[in-house]
Amino acid sequence: MTTETENQTDLASACLQIARQAKAASRRLGSLDTTIKDRWLSESADALIEATDAIIEANEQDLAAAPAYGLTDASIDRLRLDAARIEGIAKGLREIASLKDPIGEVLDGFTRPGGMRIEKRRVPLGVVFFIYESRPNVTADAAGICVKSGNAVILRGGKEAMHSSRAIVSVLHEVAARVGVPEHAVQLVETTDRAAVGHFLKLNDQIDVTIPRGGEGLIRRVAAEATMPVIKHYDGNCHVYVDATANIDMAVDVIENSKCHRMGVCNACESLLIHEWILADALPAIAARLASRGIEMRVDERAAVHVPGGIPATEEDFSTEFLGPTISIAVVDSLDEAVEHINRYGSGHTDAIMTSEIAAAERFTDLVDSAAVMVNASTRFNDGGMFGLGAEIGISTDKFHARGPCGLRELTSYKYIVRGNGHLRS
Amino acid sequence: MTTETENQTDLASACLQIARQAKAASRRLGSLDTTIKDRWLSESADALIEATDAIIEANEQDLAAAPAYGLTDASIDRLRLDAARIEGIAKGLREIASLKDPIGEVLDGFTRPGGMRIEKRRVPLGVVFFIYESRPNVTADAAGICVKSGNAVILRGGKEAMHSSRAIVSVLHEVAARVGVPEHAVQLVETTDRAAVGHFLKLNDQIDVTIPRGGEGLIRRVAAEATMPVIKHYDGNCHVYVDATANIDMAVDVIENSKCHRMGVCNACESLLIHEWILADALPAIAARLASRGIEMRVDERAAVHVPGGIPATEEDFSTEFLGPTISIAVVDSLDEAVEHINRYGSGHTDAIMTSEIAAAERFTDLVDSAAVMVNASTRFNDGGMFGLGAEIGISTDKFHARGPCGLRELTSYKYIVRGNGHLRS
Repeated sequence: MTTETENQTDLASACLQIARQAKAASRRLGSLDTTIKDRWLSESADALIEATDAIIEANEQDLAAAPAYGLTDASIDRLRLDAARIEGIAKGLREIASLKDPIGEVLDGFTRPGGMRIEKRRVPLGVVFFIYESRPNVTADAAGICVKSGNAVILRGGKEAMHSSRAIVSVLHEVAARVGVPEHAVQLVETTDRAAVGHFLKLNDQIDVTIPRGGEGLIRRVAAEATMPVIKHYDGNCHVYVDATANIDMAVDVIENSKCHRMGVCNACESLLIHEWILADALPAIAARLASRGIEMRVDERAAVHVPGGIPATEEDFSTEFLGPTISIAVVDSLDEAVEHINRYGSGHTDAIMTSEIAAAERFTDLVDSAAVMVNASTRFNDGGMFGLGAEIGISTDKFHARGPCGLRELTSYKYIVRGNGHLRS
Repeated sequence: MTTETENQTDLASACLQIARQAKAASRRLGSLDTTIKDRWLSESADALIEATDAIIEANEQDLAAAPAYGLTDASIDRLRLDAARIEGIAKGLREIASLKDPIGEVLDGFTRPGGMRIEKRRVPLGVVFFIYESRPNVTADAAGICVKSGNAVILRGGKEAMHSSRAIVSVLHEVAARVGVPEHAVQLVETTDRAAVGHFLKLNDQIDVTIPRGGEGLIRRVAAEATMPVIKHYDGNCHVYVDATANIDMAVDVIENSKCHRMGVCNACESLLIHEWILADALPAIAARLASRGIEMRVDERAAVHVPGGIPATEEDFSTEFLGPTISIAVVDSLDEAVEHINRYGSGHTDAIMTSEIAAAERFTDLVDSAAVMVNASTRFNDGGMFGLGAEIGISTDKFHARGPCGLRELTSYKYIVRGNGHLRS
């Protein structure tokens, strides 16, 4: 028991030291010249490719241990690195280098009566604590996004990818030393002790934001324990609503794309709503297309008539994010009923309307309270890359601070700079 | 014990009902026409003036109970309403009406390859839970700011002002019913049970943000208990740094204004730093001015030489927000030492440099990590009104979401609207 306590005390002070180092690095990063950050990104891209053999060797250690960790085949595939994937990681860093530096951007400015000048300037948040799954490419990506936006980052990756992540971070560190990026701008938490996360979550004097990526359980635990702000990334219960005036062919294609393009992701469609007026014309075609893709349909009573083999839906089905080949289907009597359904059962992630009527599109986009509201487009487009925002560290389901794709700008704050000439308040 | 439990269950469900009503109202408020919100604001201003007698009568009940609550004379004065103060409240609402509606503002927009159009549109946060001190004018102010920014608000004011607040909210409700603002856009929590706050802080499905205003203890308690985001408003340990090239006369005036204009407020100066090179020239003049205003000076060793009657400063003095006629004074050898001192001891609120050198001003404003950084201007200017931002609900000491003066825009989020023509992701 005493040893356990001592170990925890040691671990807590190791975490504190990492966090303090990150804070000190962030002070320098905040005003680091864009040229240096971009040189670090592009030279790291080159250096990672040069280090391909060493990275693959480290990765093989992770792969060898993977069965012992009980990883699924899909997880092992995500863990595996080869030359092409390392080139992909390098390409990601070069893309971040090509993005506009958000730091120093003037967001607003005015001259006050009396001549005092006020400027609202974008600054980094400071220190990001990033908790993520066992994908070594995310290590480089997250480091790149954080440093480009002027933040120091503490990386807590899955233990299953530890050797690979360590090899990648060691390359980033070598380049950092060469180009003048602070050593502790990027730190990898090397302990596999799960208690480390709890220690970091207490350090709100040093850490400005925590971003957990992974299952809902992890995110809820982090949100509950954290003493600093958390950017949360829950899954999405996304809807497509087929309005009375929808183009049916277009609706069939968009629903198929929203549901089937990739099923296990947060912006996949999980639920379909159809206006009663278009039901008999639209649903048979939609159901046939979904059936041809092997999708199981859980239907309410009125939808059942048009869905051969449909399974009666329970109340719970409408709240469920299936993340697989299942969809729920309900019939509504009005657009407002669809909106109410979405705001009640949805998760505020991505919801779409299929309609040809301006008034319907306007009302739906006004009233649906989601991060992204699509009109006649697939839910799958809610993504930083698809939006043209560049690299993203996640898709926020919060409304506070960052909503939707979370890229460079979402990792920033601002300060007011006030310039006077001896101005006094009277 | 059972009765206590039952009472708490009743209280919890009463709080839940208020929060649900607020959420429902916020759905309508989010797309309510600006004209209706502004009509509500300006007609409420008129109606409050018309209701002067009734409001003063209610206020007299609060004043009669004040001694029993142990209020100080200063608090009783802040609680008191007369015709002039009610006109002030009305004027505040008219000013909010005159501000640009932030809702619907397009923050960004682009057309993607393939023709899909994306718009980032400002939307309300939803429901604000506002906890504040016993100042009845704040009741109307907060209601006005929240509704103008499209949010429903749950007002939890001090019990000492309950009769006054109730009279004011009842006027706001009458006008709301007349002009078409939802009844539950503004709700006053009428129970005096302190446990109610705890119940509301659990309701993160209904409440989008909590804003506590009051002492540090209250804010810390709310931040620890809240399950939703909190905008925090801590006091400020604000600095004025006199650089080697400062204009001494200007420095003396700005320091006096920063320290003495109003001592008990968050943007008052609490600590003075002086560059060693200008020490012998500047400090005697500064000390003489501060002494003439009755300010007690707590000085480090090198400053002591130039401050007759100076008291030796302790380490703790440099972390202290005196909020009264005391200031700490330290000598530094460089601008970087001043920055380091401010980032260590300061509270990230407001810090100023007095200098005539561009390079010094740039370095100071870059490196000081505070919500507002002033150059040759009084710290007292960090204020929404002084910045020209209009009404504010507080000054945030957070970096996340809102920093500095917190007005209409700081109570908003955004959503992405995506318009396609059957666009599919490939």
